[in-house]
Amino acid sequence: MPLSQIPVAVLGATGSVGQRFVSLLDNHPWFKVVALAASDRSAGQKYSQAARWVLDDPMPAYARDMLVVPASTDCIDAKIIFSALHTEIANEVEPQFAQAGAAVCSNASSYRRGIDVPLLLPEINADHVQLVKHQRASRGWSGCIVTNPNCTSTGLTIALKALDNAFGVKQVIAVSLQALSGAGYPGVPSLDIMDNIIPNVANGGEEEKVEWEPRKMLGTLNENKIEMADITFSAHTNRVAVIDGHTVCASVKLEEAVEPEAAIQALREFTSHHSARDLPSSPRPVIEVREEADRPQPRLDRLAGKGMTTVVGRVRRDPILGLKFVVLSHNTIRGAAGASIYNAELLVNEGLL
Amino acid sequence: MPLSQIPVAVLGATGSVGQRFVSLLDNHPWFKVVALAASDRSAGQKYSQAARWVLDDPMPAYARDMLVVPASTDCIDAKIIFSALHTEIANEVEPQFAQAGAAVCSNASSYRRGIDVPLLLPEINADHVQLVKHQRASRGWSGCIVTNPNCTSTGLTIALKALDNAFGVKQVIAVSLQALSGAGYPGVPSLDIMDNIIPNVANGGEEEKVEWEPRKMLGTLNENKIEMADITFSAHTNRVAVIDGHTVCASVKLEEAVEPEAAIQALREFTSHHSARDLPSSPRPVIEVREEADRPQPRLDRLAGKGMTTVVGRVRRDPILGLKFVVLSHNTIRGAAGASIYNAELLVNEGLL
Amino acid sequence: MPLSQIPVAVLGATGSVGQRFVSLLDNHPWFKVVALAASDRSAGQKYSQAARWVLDDPMPAYARDMLVVPASTDCIDAKIIFSALHTEIANEVEPQFAQAGAAVCSNASSYRRGIDVPLLLPEINADHVQLVKHQRASRGWSGCIVTNPNCTSTGLTIALKALDNAFGVKQVIAVSLQALSGAGYPGVPSLDIMDNIIPNVANGGEEEKVEWEPRKMLGTLNENKIEMADITFSAHTNRVAVIDGHTVCASVKLEEAVEPEAAIQALREFTSHHSARDLPSSPRPVIEVREEADRPQPRLDRLAGKGMTTVVGRVRRDPILGLKFVVLSHNTIRGAAGASIYNAELLVNEGLL
Amino acid sequence: MPLSQIPVAVLGATGSVGQRFVSLLDNHPWFKVVALAASDRSAGQKYSQAARWVLDDPMPAYARDMLVVPASTDCIDAKIIFSALHTEIANEVEPQFAQAGAAVCSNASSYRRGIDVPLLLPEINADHVQLVKHQRASRGWSGCIVTNPNCTSTGLTIALKALDNAFGVKQVIAVSLQALSGAGYPGVPSLDIMDNIIPNVANGGEEEKVEWEPRKMLGTLNENKIEMADITFSAHTNRVAVIDGHTVCASVKLEEAVEPEAAIQALREFTSHHSARDLPSSPRPVIEVREEADRPQPRLDRLAGKGMTTVVGRVRRDPILGLKFVVLSHNTIRGAAGASIYNAELLVNEGLL
Repeated sequence: MPLSQIPVAVLGATGSVGQRFVSLLDNHPWFKVVALAASDRSAGQKYSQAARWVLDDPMPAYARDMLVVPASTDCIDAKIIFSALHTEIANEVEPQFAQAGAAVCSNASSYRRGIDVPLLLPEINADHVQLVKHQRASRGWSGCIVTNPNCTSTGLTIALKALDNAFGVKQVIAVSLQALSGAGYPGVPSLDIMDNIIPNVANGGEEEKVEWEPRKMLGTLNENKIEMADITFSAHTNRVAVIDGHTVCASVKLEEAVEPEAAIQALREFTSHHSARDLPSSPRPVIEVREEADRPQPRLDRLAGKGMTTVVGRVRRDPILGLKFVVLSHNTIRGAAGASIYNAELLVNEGLL
Repeated sequence: MPLSQIPVAVLGATGSVGQRFVSLLDNHPWFKVVALAASDRSAGQKYSQAARWVLDDPMPAYARDMLVVPASTDCIDAKIIFSALHTEIANEVEPQFAQAGAAVCSNASSYRRGIDVPLLLPEINADHVQLVKHQRASRGWSGCIVTNPNCTSTGLTIALKALDNAFGVKQVIAVSLQALSGAGYPGVPSLDIMDNIIPNVANGGEEEKVEWEPRKMLGTLNENKIEMADITFSAHTNRVAVIDGHTVCASVKLEEAVEPEAAIQALREFTSHHSARDLPSSPRPVIEVREEADRPQPRLDRLAGKGMTTVVGRVRRDPILGLKFVVLSHNTIRGAAGASIYNAELLVNEGLL
Repeated sequence: MPLSQIPVAVLGATGSVGQRFVSLLDNHPWFKVVALAASDRSAGQKYSQAARWVLDDPMPAYARDMLVVPASTDCIDAKIIFSALHTEIANEVEPQFAQAGAAVCSNASSYRRGIDVPLLLPEINADHVQLVKHQRASRGWSGCIVTNPNCTSTGLTIALKALDNAFGVKQVIAVSLQALSGAGYPGVPSLDIMDNIIPNVANGGEEEKVEWEPRKMLGTLNENKIEMADITFSAHTNRVAVIDGHTVCASVKLEEAVEPEAAIQALREFTSHHSARDLPSSPRPVIEVREEADRPQPRLDRLAGKGMTTVVGRVRRDPILGLKFVVLSHNTIRGAAGASIYNAELLVNEGLL
Repeated sequence: MPLSQIPVAVLGATGSVGQRFVSLLDNHPWFKVVALAASDRSAGQKYSQAARWVLDDPMPAYARDMLVVPASTDCIDAKIIFSALHTEIANEVEPQFAQAGAAVCSNASSYRRGIDVPLLLPEINADHVQLVKHQRASRGWSGCIVTNPNCTSTGLTIALKALDNAFGVKQVIAVSLQALSGAGYPGVPSLDIMDNIIPNVANGGEEEKVEWEPRKMLGTLNENKIEMADITFSAHTNRVAVIDGHTVCASVKLEEAVEPEAAIQALREFTSHHSARDLPSSPRPVIEVREEADRPQPRLDRLAGKGMTTVVGRVRRDPILGLKFVVLSHNTIRGAAGASIYNAELLVNEGLL
């Protein structure tokens, strides 16, 4: 645990993921929010005026009267930068902070594919964080950029890691039922989703991410390079009328056929990499396996482990690929803001700040 | 077209599928409703009192003052019996009507697996209706029982038939997002589905049906026997907050790899068996293929072809099985009441009444 | 009935009310759509490309390939102009068309308060349409502008007219539960209304309209001037998770106390002004009174009389004001596009085109 | 604070209000749950099997393995009995426990109208609890029954008390928009509320309660008798698609006209009776007044003060009765289980156990 609280800032603090950062950082044992940044339009206003709050939990008291600042290195002096910026803006702004010496823990997709940028889920690939040493060397930065995956990949990849360790994973067909908060605010118009589903998220970009990102995270760090896992993914994404919590129905081919009971045992026994195990945001447990025939359900299970636990259910035989199951993960906690904060805790724990 | 209107009755007329029968039979050019049957509790009441109407369209005038009768051959004199009964009751009652000479067009699952019972989607297997001759001979009935599949299989199987004809289908992984009306009334409690999905329908029975029924319908009638199609299905069912319209995300392995464009062409060019083409309930078109990146959607597409058309979209390459797409079908029209009525029309057209 | 079809145009045709105009004018016996106008951004595109269709019913065939034109008198040659424009644009554009000789039937609020502009619900104040003669004389227009009220006032005012005729109305407290389609598209974000209500519509402007517009419509035309009805209104508006159909809970003080049965009889016996009775869009009946303890309900009753009928229920004693009841009206049919079309039919019938 | 934890039991523990009791009593500083009772059908099962959990928060660990017992004095030894029983059963069972010496804190409506039974909202009428002395004397009980009002009256009455103290209240017209959890589980069918509202709750009983219960709570205790407040209420109730949180739109006539600012000040400055102020469940604050034009909203405000605070907004002039505003209260916390627990704390604090 750090001796004193580390100053942190949130970029894109007024959006829906930004709000989740603000909420999760309330009373964080290690971090203290010193700046909330948003677009120039909001800069100068109190946060309580600038943000149209959309979370069930009330806005934390610490944030209400903070003045929003621009997302610029001139205005922000913090050791850790949490980025909930849109891709195009993150593209430009995040390297400026890394250059200036900050550890940027980003939820944006801009640098996820960078060959020297860790794409982290600390439970499963905490060792990949060492890539930042190479990143610093090659880019001449004193800071760094580390990223977390898109929200739909998150729970799926954690469950797959447990199975991959135990049996080896070869193929994955994943069909998602994604929550509205994943689209930000204002996001999905109510007339589009009332009494309806939309059989595509972000018109396709989401599916490409789900077919690529897990392969990097399930890959191996070898001499400053991630070797992508040799797994084929097919993704189909859907938007449904759920506020928080992404559900994925997965059919999986393993290297050898296994009984559902063996898969359940592997999922239950999976533990984090030791350096990711006892951090403030560590999921407890990493994976929860439900036995009921109709779980996990978003409304009932998304807050398992304070929203950081991956919940798996309906583990059963698939007549074609061998195994199938359902995964649920809280998309704005484990799948977004909580993910970046967990990554930051890992950086601290590894002495990489 | 029949010379005069044929007297028909609806069993289970007060339930949600029964209501759809009552609605679709309003002003039917061939059929005239002479009896509405329900449980003994409702018998003797006016239909407008006995039924808690749940459809958007108002209750047809013809039905309002009809007195509900028990589902018994003593009380009903009709040539065609539409059955929206629960499985256990259908089990017992439907053969009584067939014995008494009526053509029972059933939406219940009781007899779908019967080796002498046609499981029909007239667009794709109208020839299977000839099995009733064998049924009559072997059971000594003057009437008959014909069935339609469960609502989730319906649209999927129609789309698969077009692909099977053109390319041969080997494997199908199907993930459904099913509407609430499929569970009847009162059905799904609102507290279970608001801000939620349920990752299983009917706790498993539904998935078995989707893995079995299409194989019979895509099979071949050979000398009084259906040879099941040699296709493997894996089904995952979900309930979502949609009133009407079942969506299925399908990944399909064909006998040979085909381009999405070729699959789209096969879907578009598919036409019904000639004897099923110009009936009052024939879908026009059988299959509609949408090109948009976010269609079909239940609210916008379920009423295509008056709810009888199967709508397909997002036809694209699947990295694992080869082809994937989305199918939408109106679950209480094409997938239930409309299906049974279409079957009855086929019986009339084939002179099998 | 006109001898030949009258050419009409829709301004703001791509929005949600505009779409309802396009839908309702399909196969209209008197009117033929010759132009669909929208913003310059959409002009030149096919309507099927320019409009993101949000209605359940498919886009009518006639409209799909029409090229969208700008909302300008240079581009449109039509006798009747249906306006679904936003207030600020309507403010400027509608008089140009009236000047150019067209009868503008507007759903916008811009001119509703004009002292020479009829605010019409033909069932109840068809005689007010004569005000256009004075409007033409004073403004030197060969065309005219006639308006319909906001969607929340519509059903309420129709029900009140029946009571006012019979007993005299003095005070009305109205609490609305309004549908999402009233906010247009994209309108209300899904995150704002899922598992929620918003206790204010348009942040206040709506309540002022409901407190003012009924007084004009229930007023008396005297020598080219409307004398406002001497009734006090108090409005409270709410947005709820309903797609179409505005519900209003009304408490009413009449000039003398009446029994609910007498009020029901007055509502049931109410008939339109003779010149508004047999038009293509005339509601049949004008008012439907439901006796059930839990009706009207938006999903079940909004399409009564093809969406033009006002449905009233729960008529009962109010311990404070004397009488209370619930009113339901389809907000984009009777309350918007259908209203303007009905107004246009009245103009034709009165020879005022 | 009690020296050691007081043993308590929950009757009707498997229902939706019962679950809320189980959840709120987790880690309660004064109370320890020693028995969970439900119908004979559930008795003998583990609570985790008997209850179909419907709350977002996971089932507390303490409850999972408790064996459910029948709601009988033979099986339960507790000083305080929390009753979430249905009216008819409460009618019979509650007096048995009171007779046997337990303090029954009931959410059922059975005894709310009893002339010797306190109907309590401790913030506003904690002094009424003294009525239990008279109850004991007259009925010969060593225990007692105290009740809390129905969920719709709760927030409204608290807000009215602040206004009544300051200005005197004469008339109240209240229109509710009530949450689904108020109907219990399974409660409202999803097909009844999706894309819909129901303009009546419990087909009328609810409105009678809202028109009667506040008068008792706002009344005065005089020599073992409550004098009902001289206020007339008119209630109109609606069910809307909200999970938790009842909203009420109220128009109020005070003894003299007051400016909204004065009303806001009275609401803000209202404080509890001293004996109700510092209990574990005391709302902090009692009333929160929001200034935004679109608050309170159920999803955003229902958890104010851990679900015990009454949130008021849109305080403004009413053109007819003088003042209007919106009240929000969490229906299963402040309006049900939390209410009974708060009542129990008051009994303890007053030495009335």
